[in-house]
Amino acid sequence: MTEHSLWRFSRALHRAINDRHFEDIEALIDEDVEWAIYGPIDMFPFLGARQGKEAVLEVIHQLADNFRVRRFDRESIMLGVDSAASMLRYSLTALDSDKPISLRVAQFAQFRAGKLIGMRVLVDSFDLVEQALGRAIHLPRMTSVG
Amino acid sequence: MTEHSLWRFSRALHRAINDRHFEDIEALIDEDVEWAIYGPIDMFPFLGARQGKEAVLEVIHQLADNFRVRRFDRESIMLGVDSAASMLRYSLTALDSDKPISLRVAQFAQFRAGKLIGMRVLVDSFDLVEQALGRAIHLPRMTSVG
Repeated sequence: MTEHSLWRFSRALHRAINDRHFEDIEALIDEDVEWAIYGPIDMFPFLGARQGKEAVLEVIHQLADNFRVRRFDRESIMLGVDSAASMLRYSLTALDSDKPISLRVAQFAQFRAGKLIGMRVLVDSFDLVEQALGRAIHLPRMTSVG
Repeated sequence: MTEHSLWRFSRALHRAINDRHFEDIEALIDEDVEWAIYGPIDMFPFLGARQGKEAVLEVIHQLADNFRVRRFDRESIMLGVDSAASMLRYSLTALDSDKPISLRVAQFAQFRAGKLIGMRVLVDSFDLVEQALGRAIHLPRMTSVG
């Protein structure tokens, strides 16, 4: 049985981010890839939508410039023939501040011939913002619940 | 072929939220369900983790007290025998303010004998907070990217 594309991609991505080894991931991204990490792009300019391999590799370089992955745990996972969805908990270090960031992430990936053609990532963005700021943002209670 | 549990659950959930018809959804939740919607619980007390049918039904009642679903689009979906993962875009109305809220949501569901036993939901929580506040939160740029 062949290894699922997700495992190869995931290993290569973490190797790119942590070791700045980009060759493996370059070989696993389709030229016409569609990519989006939804989140506050004002704070993190490498979030948002990208199209094409070159733009996605630039994002991965920027992730490597800003973070290290200390650990990650997959809390949920579904694998299809050419697709994968997972919910993960990442423990990151923000390199500029050396601050730990703990982040929940949902990721939907689509592969073709072993290469990534689609990636949508949702993060618990408010949690990310508060951790990156290093302080809580005061929120009013917005609900009719007593 | 039997209908996937996700479709029945999704229909019942929306009927509960929009029409306050709770009978269908009550029949589709396992007594020992594990449930979590990750997000700012200070602002929205019905977010967070819950265990057991009664606690989950209370959350669904609170969702019905606070929101209407105007529309939703599934952007990604994966179905397993007893599981489902999807990324959706919801158009909601916040009932207290009559404000529209547009929200991206990732949802991982687990079923047993047609009943929900596990649900984890991640939302683009910063986007939600800004829309609920009705104003942008100023964020510094937090990156080493030039």
